[in-house]
Amino acid sequence: MNELELIARLTHSLPANASLVAGAGDDCAVLDCGLPGRYLLFKTDAVVQGVHFTARATPEQIGHKALGRCLSDIAAMAGRPLAALVTAALPNNFDPAFVERIYAGLNALALRHGVAIAGGETVSNPERLLLSISMVGEVARDKCLRRGGAKPGDALFVTGELGGSLSGKHLDFEPRLAEAQWLAQNFHIHSMIDLSDGLAGDLRHLLLASHTGAELLSQAIPISRAARLQARAPSHPKPPLLAALGDGEDFELLFTVASRDAVRLLDRWKKQFPKLRLTCIGRITAGRGLKLRDKTGLHSLETHGYVHFS
Amino acid sequence: MNELELIARLTHSLPANASLVAGAGDDCAVLDCGLPGRYLLFKTDAVVQGVHFTARATPEQIGHKALGRCLSDIAAMAGRPLAALVTAALPNNFDPAFVERIYAGLNALALRHGVAIAGGETVSNPERLLLSISMVGEVARDKCLRRGGAKPGDALFVTGELGGSLSGKHLDFEPRLAEAQWLAQNFHIHSMIDLSDGLAGDLRHLLLASHTGAELLSQAIPISRAARLQARAPSHPKPPLLAALGDGEDFELLFTVASRDAVRLLDRWKKQFPKLRLTCIGRITAGRGLKLRDKTGLHSLETHGYVHFS
Repeated sequence: MNELELIARLTHSLPANASLVAGAGDDCAVLDCGLPGRYLLFKTDAVVQGVHFTARATPEQIGHKALGRCLSDIAAMAGRPLAALVTAALPNNFDPAFVERIYAGLNALALRHGVAIAGGETVSNPERLLLSISMVGEVARDKCLRRGGAKPGDALFVTGELGGSLSGKHLDFEPRLAEAQWLAQNFHIHSMIDLSDGLAGDLRHLLLASHTGAELLSQAIPISRAARLQARAPSHPKPPLLAALGDGEDFELLFTVASRDAVRLLDRWKKQFPKLRLTCIGRITAGRGLKLRDKTGLHSLETHGYVHFS
Repeated sequence: MNELELIARLTHSLPANASLVAGAGDDCAVLDCGLPGRYLLFKTDAVVQGVHFTARATPEQIGHKALGRCLSDIAAMAGRPLAALVTAALPNNFDPAFVERIYAGLNALALRHGVAIAGGETVSNPERLLLSISMVGEVARDKCLRRGGAKPGDALFVTGELGGSLSGKHLDFEPRLAEAQWLAQNFHIHSMIDLSDGLAGDLRHLLLASHTGAELLSQAIPISRAARLQARAPSHPKPPLLAALGDGEDFELLFTVASRDAVRLLDRWKKQFPKLRLTCIGRITAGRGLKLRDKTGLHSLETHGYVHFS
């Protein structure tokens, strides 16, 4: 049983109540607490030593990554983060100075994005460090971007460059909060998700939620320098396109808009965020499934991205 | 360095923002998100295999305990729980059926208290199970009970019976949500905390936050049957009073009211909650420190309750 199958079994009939707008199955849970014109966003995410980072990561990077992953999910719904709680599950014989440096990395990112660190707790997890962040944020009800709104004919956009994140970016990425809020405020974005499981995997989540398919243009997919370098590595070289499609933890935004908005969006983006690439990588189709068009034609894309536990 | 010292170092200068009313240092964080007349409560709590439960606990009990601990903290501020997220950090070769049974225990408690389980995630924690719950709740701004409001002369009350929780209650306690909400709605409660670290330890938290002291009446402290049985155990017998003062995880409410309200509160409580004992166990004093009065006189109480990591 892989992670997705287990989650499907656990989430098929969870307790709900009147405040629950959207539970398991989007980037954040969405709650209606009676906030005038706004929804509350609620998210939790954990990183585990040896799974999400190795001994080579600095404690500051571990803190940054843990908080950044939650912020990226708030961004995926065009939300504004409010406050986070930190659960530090500490191994035997942990070094208090190491834990303080984790907090330093985490606090620096929190300050940059205006998030309060509202507390948390420390527990013992004898064999390894686990850092879990929970976060609340808010979003205007009519600007809350979901995975399920993609429409046939939509243009499919991605920020930044993809692949090879494990060579460094996964520890120092900047969550796309300002970019997502700007998109929601200035365009009618139909659907959005952040890239954590890899382009192909996360696009599948978006397509499933939207009951649509997509066609990716092989040559348009923005490939990171890290992915290109990786392809030339003497051991375990990987084709850069495969890295861009399959590698996890890009923490970029993937979203769709009506095709008639695509050119205007690209133009305004370049003025607003001149340092961050935005690329149209394909379109949403009525027919289900994910297809890749390259010089030789149209191919069905069977990769599922990174599936945990598999 | 024990848990309290580490937490003091980590929390002495955390990022804040305009939404933060109270961060680290109370039962829940308190946020002002613009909810008319209400605050948002935000809490996280984790249980770890071998630390908070053993192999003898059923999976349903583990789920119940994890969620119940968070609910008890929402109760301590007289809040109403809205939604929870579940982080299941699963060991290698976990049994999916075991995880489903954890959720069954957790869901049953959530349903009883009207909490939505709004999602969460599964991660790998190779050596042991760790279950972290994050929760949001709400409370009327003028009914939010804090640790820091105790006044000299206040009567000190505790619900239920104390001590010996590890012999069973820590796995099947019922969080005192209805009781706390009723107290806040019907009386001017000055301060409240839930008992997780033991009566003496949690009372010290309340006294520190309130800048007061307290005098406990030895003979008034309600001692559980489990604590009495434990005292007769052939190995490691413990005096029942010591168990009631020092054992953790009672998950009862400890609160203070003006002494003039004490008799009326006891009378109304008996009618409202005839099955749950409520006991006046002492009073708040202007002089600092925690003292215990017994037949032989007044003694300073130096025990600190259960301190993690110590």
